[in-house]
Amino acid sequence: MCLVNTATSTASTELRVAVLGARGKVGSEICRAVTAADGMALVAEVDAGDSLEMLVESGAQTVVDFTHPDVVMDNLQFCIDHGIHAVVGTTGFDDDRLDQLRTWLAASPATGVLIAPNFSIGAILMMRFAAQAAPFFDSVEIVELHHPTKADAPSGTARRTAELVAEARRAAGSAPMPDATSTALDGARGADVDGVPVHSVRVRGLVAHQEVILGELGETLTIRHDSLDRAGFGPGVLAGLRGIETHPGLTIGLEHFLDLPG
Amino acid sequence: MCLVNTATSTASTELRVAVLGARGKVGSEICRAVTAADGMALVAEVDAGDSLEMLVESGAQTVVDFTHPDVVMDNLQFCIDHGIHAVVGTTGFDDDRLDQLRTWLAASPATGVLIAPNFSIGAILMMRFAAQAAPFFDSVEIVELHHPTKADAPSGTARRTAELVAEARRAAGSAPMPDATSTALDGARGADVDGVPVHSVRVRGLVAHQEVILGELGETLTIRHDSLDRAGFGPGVLAGLRGIETHPGLTIGLEHFLDLPG
Amino acid sequence: MCLVNTATSTASTELRVAVLGARGKVGSEICRAVTAADGMALVAEVDAGDSLEMLVESGAQTVVDFTHPDVVMDNLQFCIDHGIHAVVGTTGFDDDRLDQLRTWLAASPATGVLIAPNFSIGAILMMRFAAQAAPFFDSVEIVELHHPTKADAPSGTARRTAELVAEARRAAGSAPMPDATSTALDGARGADVDGVPVHSVRVRGLVAHQEVILGELGETLTIRHDSLDRAGFGPGVLAGLRGIETHPGLTIGLEHFLDLPG
Amino acid sequence: MCLVNTATSTASTELRVAVLGARGKVGSEICRAVTAADGMALVAEVDAGDSLEMLVESGAQTVVDFTHPDVVMDNLQFCIDHGIHAVVGTTGFDDDRLDQLRTWLAASPATGVLIAPNFSIGAILMMRFAAQAAPFFDSVEIVELHHPTKADAPSGTARRTAELVAEARRAAGSAPMPDATSTALDGARGADVDGVPVHSVRVRGLVAHQEVILGELGETLTIRHDSLDRAGFGPGVLAGLRGIETHPGLTIGLEHFLDLPG
Repeated sequence: MCLVNTATSTASTELRVAVLGARGKVGSEICRAVTAADGMALVAEVDAGDSLEMLVESGAQTVVDFTHPDVVMDNLQFCIDHGIHAVVGTTGFDDDRLDQLRTWLAASPATGVLIAPNFSIGAILMMRFAAQAAPFFDSVEIVELHHPTKADAPSGTARRTAELVAEARRAAGSAPMPDATSTALDGARGADVDGVPVHSVRVRGLVAHQEVILGELGETLTIRHDSLDRAGFGPGVLAGLRGIETHPGLTIGLEHFLDLPG
Repeated sequence: MCLVNTATSTASTELRVAVLGARGKVGSEICRAVTAADGMALVAEVDAGDSLEMLVESGAQTVVDFTHPDVVMDNLQFCIDHGIHAVVGTTGFDDDRLDQLRTWLAASPATGVLIAPNFSIGAILMMRFAAQAAPFFDSVEIVELHHPTKADAPSGTARRTAELVAEARRAAGSAPMPDATSTALDGARGADVDGVPVHSVRVRGLVAHQEVILGELGETLTIRHDSLDRAGFGPGVLAGLRGIETHPGLTIGLEHFLDLPG
Repeated sequence: MCLVNTATSTASTELRVAVLGARGKVGSEICRAVTAADGMALVAEVDAGDSLEMLVESGAQTVVDFTHPDVVMDNLQFCIDHGIHAVVGTTGFDDDRLDQLRTWLAASPATGVLIAPNFSIGAILMMRFAAQAAPFFDSVEIVELHHPTKADAPSGTARRTAELVAEARRAAGSAPMPDATSTALDGARGADVDGVPVHSVRVRGLVAHQEVILGELGETLTIRHDSLDRAGFGPGVLAGLRGIETHPGLTIGLEHFLDLPG
Repeated sequence: MCLVNTATSTASTELRVAVLGARGKVGSEICRAVTAADGMALVAEVDAGDSLEMLVESGAQTVVDFTHPDVVMDNLQFCIDHGIHAVVGTTGFDDDRLDQLRTWLAASPATGVLIAPNFSIGAILMMRFAAQAAPFFDSVEIVELHHPTKADAPSGTARRTAELVAEARRAAGSAPMPDATSTALDGARGADVDGVPVHSVRVRGLVAHQEVILGELGETLTIRHDSLDRAGFGPGVLAGLRGIETHPGLTIGLEHFLDLPG
């Protein structure tokens, strides 16, 4: 652990931020983004082997947690106990874990925890626009394209997009999508996620990309997100940090902190 | 003119629609779409040389006007005088014309007129999403691509998109877009529309396409609309027809009839 | 049948062309293209019910056949017997049929027959470039996108592209493509065509589109073909007509008539 | 300077490579790629302040030069004098410099120098395919998209592509491109490079991308290159190193070392 900044050297109006998982690939980008941002100070970089007590010693008001499902619950229990807000990008939260967080937060009602499956503002907007547009079109399909070292297909973002599109179509009473395919090779028409076809491309040189293609008679609308660099998480994490003090309790999804219409 | 359907043969709950400009390229597609749609009946197909009296004889409740700037004001005066609603795709409305329409409509307060620069739902959503997303990104540029027989560059849709993006950026207090270009050939960086660069591609084989590219550190969001066929206007015109009875007075822009969030 | 042009009224240097299947969707576009082209004359439009004798009466030197697998062999036997060249877009040629054609042509050695699975020059170039580029990249995948009334998935063009890419990779001794997918939904990774993943998107508003995505460390190359209109076949058929007199015997694939490097 | 590998420790069949500009962004990627490659050894990493004598001491057979126009001629004179081949990515070669290189090489006829404006194999193939395809289409336009810290517009690759396309069109006797634009904002139709419109997009989050769009009646062909990472230069530099011993004299353009058809 590294105490980056003592409490006395930080301007009193700055948000004091500690990063858990500070030496990971994403964590180190987050440290850089917090350091460069106006209105906040990086006061501790914590990683495996460091004591959480350093959060208290550094006077951190909020942590960013990009660690591991095995340790994140211990981290959050410590933070909530000490009234430290948390902006969390670590994965692996099921209903049991979320209920546990709510119980802990009930005993510390001024503390906020944001669990965000995705800190990319572009990806959040893509999902939102896709769901908003879906009822106006007959067909919606998703093509997601990633580097070939990715383990899962489709990506989590593609699955989530498909679910949001399917919900929007159900709410609007949309008819089933047209598809006259009568002769197909296995897999040609993609995976079926809640009725939405999803196609996963894995090509060397790609990073993380997704296209949602919506169509009706005579026209198509395509919403594409390209994530070319982990630095793309920075603005989303900063938005989370800026909103956390005014959002006590548990929030799931960064979109609730963004000033989005609709 | 062709009286398609006599009043007595139309189900009483159906909207009785006449098409002005019925033999034009767009008009004939609209006739087809109205005929095929549930809940409405095509009662007259009117074109140059036909008498507007046929609108009254056919019992039309609403007209669709895809004619010409030279005749559209006469058409609309006739319709408003007779309490017939109008859904208008004809171009050429300046402030004087809109004021004239408001004056006529004041004397027929139950009548509705919709002036829509664009009936493509995909284009409307593209413009809306681009404006909503713009404040979250550092850069926004527009590439519009059309067939080489188009006379104007940029397209009207591209200009309008740029204006909406510029307005949204001003409202959000966005910083100027980054651009370190120091050596450029004339025209390389596109046209400047209210501070937004717009690039116009003209290639044989294309129809009508537009991409809005938004970017911030590490990620881009691209919203693309492809209009491949005049049939793409059909669903938008039908949405206009379905909404016109409950929107008396003058409405500018089909988006006001769509159930859009935000 | 329509005798469009009598032999005497045609300039002696013009190629005299008859179209079989002249009232079909493609055939009527071909008639238009031949009529508009320099150096050739449309001398007969033949369709079901017309007598093939009209080919002789019209003095046709070459036919274009866009008819049906059930009648195309009879058409070609008649043409070859009468020394009339044929440019054929009709499908359904297996090895038996091709052997039969070769036998007939052996008896009429000056006559040429071109069987072309694809008359789109853009599609031919896409396939050619994809195969040429494949050995320089680690990964190749194909995404083909069509209207939802298409019966087969993947498209014939996508299958053929995948086969050509696979052949080129084998000839170059390419290593297997990288793919670390360990958890996948059925179909997510597409159809396997000779080792090349192919993804078939079916969305209303699309026409016929294909992307070949090739990638290696740090870069990707994407070759995309968009066919927006049957008129796209015109230039390819004209190229076939212009080359047929100098290519006696059986030729399979329009690429052999194009002046392509490599 | 760092002597990475002494002559005796290198397998005799391995190509002994030194990198000039080894601590630069590209140079360090090249060092990594050479180290990882089969059949070659990195024997020296040279940067500003190091003596070129170290090339001789390390037994380098070939250098890779990614330095600066101010020093590259001195580097090459030294290499040619000592019979060391050179693969050069440094820019700034005009006709005078190329003539000077030819003079030096005449005195050392077994030595090879490759000057390559672009080591990206994807970019080279994009340019080649664009030029090969151009004569088959009525229209060709180029859209290049880069990060907003780029100083020049259009990019060097886009200018070169436009020149190659223009040459190919002239050689084929292509008609002027169709363009009915009669009302345009300044810059809307892009920069004119040898008759080919080029559009330069600058958006934060982009890296280096280019699309060549070719179209004829009813169809378009789009060739797109995305360079997401400097690592994309690695395979091209390795191809240069593998070919340099069998290409004595001056070669301009990596394409001459690639086994490309056509």
